[in-house]
Amino acid sequence: MPSERALGVAVVGTGKMGADHVRRLRHRISGARVRAVVDIEAERAKTLADAIEGCAAYTEPAAAMAARDVDAVLIASPGPAHEAALLEALDRDLPVLCEKPLTPDAASALRVLDAEQKLGHRRVQVGFMRRYDAEYMKLKRLLGKGELGRTLMLHHRHRNPAMPEWFTEEMLINDSVVHEMDVTRWLLDQEITAVTVHKPASTSNAPAGMSDPQFVLFETESGALVDVEIFGHCGFGYQVQAEAVCERGIVRMDDEHGPRLTTADGRWGGRVTPDYLERFEDAYDREVQAWVDATRRGETTGPSVWDGYAAAAVCEAGVLSQREGRRVEVDLIERPAFYQ
Amino acid sequence: MPSERALGVAVVGTGKMGADHVRRLRHRISGARVRAVVDIEAERAKTLADAIEGCAAYTEPAAAMAARDVDAVLIASPGPAHEAALLEALDRDLPVLCEKPLTPDAASALRVLDAEQKLGHRRVQVGFMRRYDAEYMKLKRLLGKGELGRTLMLHHRHRNPAMPEWFTEEMLINDSVVHEMDVTRWLLDQEITAVTVHKPASTSNAPAGMSDPQFVLFETESGALVDVEIFGHCGFGYQVQAEAVCERGIVRMDDEHGPRLTTADGRWGGRVTPDYLERFEDAYDREVQAWVDATRRGETTGPSVWDGYAAAAVCEAGVLSQREGRRVEVDLIERPAFYQ
Amino acid sequence: MPSERALGVAVVGTGKMGADHVRRLRHRISGARVRAVVDIEAERAKTLADAIEGCAAYTEPAAAMAARDVDAVLIASPGPAHEAALLEALDRDLPVLCEKPLTPDAASALRVLDAEQKLGHRRVQVGFMRRYDAEYMKLKRLLGKGELGRTLMLHHRHRNPAMPEWFTEEMLINDSVVHEMDVTRWLLDQEITAVTVHKPASTSNAPAGMSDPQFVLFETESGALVDVEIFGHCGFGYQVQAEAVCERGIVRMDDEHGPRLTTADGRWGGRVTPDYLERFEDAYDREVQAWVDATRRGETTGPSVWDGYAAAAVCEAGVLSQREGRRVEVDLIERPAFYQ
Amino acid sequence: MPSERALGVAVVGTGKMGADHVRRLRHRISGARVRAVVDIEAERAKTLADAIEGCAAYTEPAAAMAARDVDAVLIASPGPAHEAALLEALDRDLPVLCEKPLTPDAASALRVLDAEQKLGHRRVQVGFMRRYDAEYMKLKRLLGKGELGRTLMLHHRHRNPAMPEWFTEEMLINDSVVHEMDVTRWLLDQEITAVTVHKPASTSNAPAGMSDPQFVLFETESGALVDVEIFGHCGFGYQVQAEAVCERGIVRMDDEHGPRLTTADGRWGGRVTPDYLERFEDAYDREVQAWVDATRRGETTGPSVWDGYAAAAVCEAGVLSQREGRRVEVDLIERPAFYQ
Repeated sequence: MPSERALGVAVVGTGKMGADHVRRLRHRISGARVRAVVDIEAERAKTLADAIEGCAAYTEPAAAMAARDVDAVLIASPGPAHEAALLEALDRDLPVLCEKPLTPDAASALRVLDAEQKLGHRRVQVGFMRRYDAEYMKLKRLLGKGELGRTLMLHHRHRNPAMPEWFTEEMLINDSVVHEMDVTRWLLDQEITAVTVHKPASTSNAPAGMSDPQFVLFETESGALVDVEIFGHCGFGYQVQAEAVCERGIVRMDDEHGPRLTTADGRWGGRVTPDYLERFEDAYDREVQAWVDATRRGETTGPSVWDGYAAAAVCEAGVLSQREGRRVEVDLIERPAFYQ
Repeated sequence: MPSERALGVAVVGTGKMGADHVRRLRHRISGARVRAVVDIEAERAKTLADAIEGCAAYTEPAAAMAARDVDAVLIASPGPAHEAALLEALDRDLPVLCEKPLTPDAASALRVLDAEQKLGHRRVQVGFMRRYDAEYMKLKRLLGKGELGRTLMLHHRHRNPAMPEWFTEEMLINDSVVHEMDVTRWLLDQEITAVTVHKPASTSNAPAGMSDPQFVLFETESGALVDVEIFGHCGFGYQVQAEAVCERGIVRMDDEHGPRLTTADGRWGGRVTPDYLERFEDAYDREVQAWVDATRRGETTGPSVWDGYAAAAVCEAGVLSQREGRRVEVDLIERPAFYQ
Repeated sequence: MPSERALGVAVVGTGKMGADHVRRLRHRISGARVRAVVDIEAERAKTLADAIEGCAAYTEPAAAMAARDVDAVLIASPGPAHEAALLEALDRDLPVLCEKPLTPDAASALRVLDAEQKLGHRRVQVGFMRRYDAEYMKLKRLLGKGELGRTLMLHHRHRNPAMPEWFTEEMLINDSVVHEMDVTRWLLDQEITAVTVHKPASTSNAPAGMSDPQFVLFETESGALVDVEIFGHCGFGYQVQAEAVCERGIVRMDDEHGPRLTTADGRWGGRVTPDYLERFEDAYDREVQAWVDATRRGETTGPSVWDGYAAAAVCEAGVLSQREGRRVEVDLIERPAFYQ
Repeated sequence: MPSERALGVAVVGTGKMGADHVRRLRHRISGARVRAVVDIEAERAKTLADAIEGCAAYTEPAAAMAARDVDAVLIASPGPAHEAALLEALDRDLPVLCEKPLTPDAASALRVLDAEQKLGHRRVQVGFMRRYDAEYMKLKRLLGKGELGRTLMLHHRHRNPAMPEWFTEEMLINDSVVHEMDVTRWLLDQEITAVTVHKPASTSNAPAGMSDPQFVLFETESGALVDVEIFGHCGFGYQVQAEAVCERGIVRMDDEHGPRLTTADGRWGGRVTPDYLERFEDAYDREVQAWVDATRRGETTGPSVWDGYAAAAVCEAGVLSQREGRRVEVDLIERPAFYQ
């Protein structure tokens, strides 16, 4: 495509994340235009499309992808709908930014992996947006320099004030810890080999039947030990922290941003961001901009289908460990040369 | 202009700031296109324009402004060239984003003020980009809520690792402290009434004849006392801090961003950003995006010509205090109703 | 004893800790006098005693305890020598401050437990000095207030720059993690029920054959999950941190003490204390002062023989887990009413 | 005196500070005994003395100093009573620890200076206890190393939640800022040469007629510029901070001690100590212990009469600047060789 023409994007799914991406593409991202929005609820798609010049509404992803001015697809529909949309886009050789999870399980992820390999070039970027967060990027850079030696342990904290009603215990792994899985693989540049999930005493804020917080251990190829505190109903804010313990130093990412207030009750301190959209706003922008820029150059970069598949496989192991209370080894296919 | 067409921008001046704004408009800002670049060095303008599709090169601002596809002007030429370009743009009723300073002195700023009032609506936004910095914005929000009571004092720190060779002692006021002047006026929503410049013992890093650091006191209409440590050759990084002392609490903006490192020498801590482009990168983006968005809506928001004039008047008082070692009162014309 | 006469103390063991306690009793602690020093190396005891007015040297604890002006005993000899000295002191009904460990294993600790119960009142305080550290004391106070709800998890970090040559892998548990064991029991006011030791990739700073760092999980009676990073050769300083994750808030003890330095390389930060004597200097002082004060009032307070026994039992489980790589349940006798 | 006998101390004045020192000497300080307490209110002195074994009550300092078992004097009476007690003690060649101020004005301080010089050796230590605070000590050490180059500026913050009713505006200088005066002289090892007091808008928490906060500038012999924010009614806690701006780095002493709390309202942070006794408890202990130890060795160390005189002279200049709103030069006699 001519590099100076704006990239025509079809956004599949217009829920919370989809709508936020539409807003982002229109007002924050340089070089893109929203040309199609897709939702199984026709009315919702139409209302949204009507407010955007040159944008049409669809109920079927395939129809949107067939539109003349659609150059690329951003998938933000529910996870179970991803596989069909991904295969359709690969069939048409269209670049895709697919919100995580790639697909809900390892088996379906493998089918996407196969399809992309048959196509012969990368077209899918998975939406692991923490790789675009300024702080994680600095952490990666510090670890990559080699000055700190090998990383021996990673300590992660992942806290949410509360979860929506429909959020299940398995989603603590599949929707929340999946971020630490990807970040761990990316920071250490190696695969996760085993998972153990521990269940401490549960907060009374958690819904009946959900054990929360949970404490997850990952083992990696090099023997690094990674722990993740996932706390879905901590009550106070959205807190994402990471600490890398290396042979020659320690790096910590914390939450001391913004102004420090000292108030009439004698306390000093700051404020924890209330949710992930505020905390990672810039990361989402950077992610989508990077995808638009790469796509306009005719390339696909960022987290790959392999990364999406690996996350699905580790999640499966995690959910099994959560269910059976034991250490579970992760079973990955051999990494195709295509994704080396 | 039709709101969906990209805003055609002429960038006047292609030095460090101008080139950075061209890059920003092309790759970070949504809804704008660089249609013209202007530089008195014809070759430099042409080289830059040739790399951009649909962009022409000029040596005269007026010629660029006359081009059919130019909707707005971003002025980033040296200060002494601003007045002519501003008057030309106002004459053509073109929206302008003008890098600070508005003009080099209060008298010329007043001429711009008059021209805009004659035009009858705001068209000029001055480039005080700290108003778009996330931390200053939070500070402003906290002070504006009223919960902290009146602001009694502001403590500012403004440190640079080193200044270019051609940087003079007066520029410590006119180019550096001018930011604290504007931020003070904006945070407190009132004018500065007097300035005193103190000269402590000077660092041996300063060039011969320059007293550095300096310590500047502002008094404001409400009697708030504001101190600014300006340090041009502190040797280690670019540090911008602010602390508001209020009746019912204190707010501090500090430099604890990014990862915290503990290293083999037993030290823990972080890193100071090396320069203002890194520290305020997001603020510049937000500023230009806000200008593009407002312009496409047919509005002018952000720092006004009055803000540019007030800064020029306070700078004049500051340079006089610096030179004569005494407190100097600031002499402002009465604020026109047009800028209320 | 008359409350205004200084407490006559016999110090058993004159190695690093013993000599430090002698110095402390002489120059920091109010109301105590060192009347006897005991060491199996007669020469070392004599040299030390000669420098102190009114102090005699002994090679046998029993002989020192028999001296007319000895009112109390501070035991700082190696762990295997503790049992005999403790039983001797209990036999004479003398108050004891016994450096940790109480004894090297649970069986011998139980014999001391029996002896004190037969005596019928508490006479032994175990040297878990973290209970006297200002920061742990504040942490305990915060947790005790109840405002934060139940404690669900504790995250501990315990890092040393390096260990002496003779330090074994088992000592990582018995001499280092034993502090986190006691602090956990004290903060949560409950027993530890199981221990699992994990061994991540090891630092190349560790001596051959030692796995370092290790990552220890405790489970407690209420189901709280406690993790401890013990790192014996982290290379840079002595770092002790703790974070309590509660139902209604989180408390963190960190290492941001003392001045913050910004230096010519653009880094800001502080310094990690190099060893435990500097980090816990005030805690040792407070501990010994509390013991002297209580003893002069005729009481025994502070960590009890039960606390020493419980630590020994948890250590045994920890060493077993370390050796066999599995979760080990802790086997405690029922707590005697005497120690309720 | 024989070094193993406890130092017999007479405490003059049994108000808040005097009673606190009696408690300190009895329960925290090694090697001292309170042998006499003096108060013009006979009943108060007697009640206190009766509770201490071997301690007598007096209404006259001279009578207490004449007692057989009194080796040294701690003066904690109101400032106007200091001169007489100091001269009496010097006349008897008794070591003195004198709470600040040495005397209420420069003229009376000079008389004490003369008396001590006539005696021919130092006997008076002034109670500037910040010199014994762990953080100021580290700051002094860092500045003294020379690695940071010359100190160009010092920024001090000194905030109190509120002042007692009888506290006057002059006392902001004489009782509060006097600490920053001494600390400045001590850190920089030079005299203060001029003082300017600025009065910003005043908090509505201040009593009628008192301007609070105030902002004080010191100039020093080397040209360093020192600013002090003194805020008597800041409303929230006792906050003492200092920042040294040097040629090759910056050191900051802040208030991030103790545990960091994140609570259900989404705020993280710590707590400001409520008063100076809590903030400087260890400093007071260290100061009195140092005095007792030096006195038992037959020496006088710590802040001298010269330091007390210099503070009095700077305070006089400060009060004059406060009253007349102008810069006032400090007039010091030439420093006697005795105090070099």
